[in-house]
Amino acid sequence: MADEPRTRSLGAVLFPGFELLDLFGPLEMFGNLGKLVEVTAVAETAGPVRSAQGTSTVAEVAFAAAHQFDLLLIPGGWATREEHKNPAMLEFVKREADGAELLMTVCTGTMIPAAAGLLDGHKATTNKMAFAEVAAAGPKVEWVKQARWVEDGKFVTASGVSAGIDMALAVVQRLWGQELAERLATATEYDWHRDPSWDPFATVHGLA
Amino acid sequence: MADEPRTRSLGAVLFPGFELLDLFGPLEMFGNLGKLVEVTAVAETAGPVRSAQGTSTVAEVAFAAAHQFDLLLIPGGWATREEHKNPAMLEFVKREADGAELLMTVCTGTMIPAAAGLLDGHKATTNKMAFAEVAAAGPKVEWVKQARWVEDGKFVTASGVSAGIDMALAVVQRLWGQELAERLATATEYDWHRDPSWDPFATVHGLA
Repeated sequence: MADEPRTRSLGAVLFPGFELLDLFGPLEMFGNLGKLVEVTAVAETAGPVRSAQGTSTVAEVAFAAAHQFDLLLIPGGWATREEHKNPAMLEFVKREADGAELLMTVCTGTMIPAAAGLLDGHKATTNKMAFAEVAAAGPKVEWVKQARWVEDGKFVTASGVSAGIDMALAVVQRLWGQELAERLATATEYDWHRDPSWDPFATVHGLA
Repeated sequence: MADEPRTRSLGAVLFPGFELLDLFGPLEMFGNLGKLVEVTAVAETAGPVRSAQGTSTVAEVAFAAAHQFDLLLIPGGWATREEHKNPAMLEFVKREADGAELLMTVCTGTMIPAAAGLLDGHKATTNKMAFAEVAAAGPKVEWVKQARWVEDGKFVTASGVSAGIDMALAVVQRLWGQELAERLATATEYDWHRDPSWDPFATVHGLA
């Protein structure tokens, strides 16, 4: 019999004002992988965390009680203007990044590891409308202006909001193969952008 | 001074096992309209409701305590196999549909108003992989096999999972105009499919 594939733990980071689709686009994909991924929502304090769009999601574990996750997913939202200066957030993400297999960010979520210095000397991208503001939080990051998402070692950063879905499928392909990623995209009737250089929004926002 | 535009209430229906992106794709769009839309999560019982992918979202209001919503949004997920037979769900959706401006469903969520008889004689679509099973729940519905979404009066039904995002943008366009819909799509870096007949997944699943 073939070995049972191992389960990877995924920490979905919540903070007040997180952007819904940044988080739940990727979680739609990772959460449909059965035993391959176990999703846990984590925040500074356990309990309900209100999103930017109004609904609240329950953080099951507080930062202080969280174990080492294999995969970490950080969404964006305007609230990252506060969160990238939150010592508890920065300490948690630094602690996790060290032992994590992958650290994924979506949209302005990239501001958090950038401010923590984790992306220094690494390639990364972010939301195209908020590009200058996010980039200022990480002056030593090699910011890529035109990219749907960027992979640089363990750091995988997506452009704005819906780009997180394409990034998640690329990560599924990287960790478990193309067939599974294609099957997920078809099952969710998603028009997957497989090319990380596809980024018309960089042009719209005058970055390319 | 111009009149302040009125706020429409949107009831986001939760049930155990709801599909994350079915709900949060559309809520990303509706929740970013500021004072135009007020989102309330509603379920049979108030409190946390676990999704199919593992995270829990808080229902603020129970069915019995809910007022009349202007817009109702019903996500899918395999759990609709149970929910379309749940008397409390059917009673709530029938009560709301009567006075609602729009009743929106995504994916297998269509099974619920179909089973309630609300879609009898109306055009509707659903998830392309589960098409036959959903269609069986509403034998008097005019099922459209190839469609990203279908609008028939107050009933707006989307195909599988990510199709809900395209439907939501089409509804934004219908209620508040194309400019706002385009602005939302660009801000969320979403590759909006504006044509409701775009549906390659009907072909993949042998429906067209």
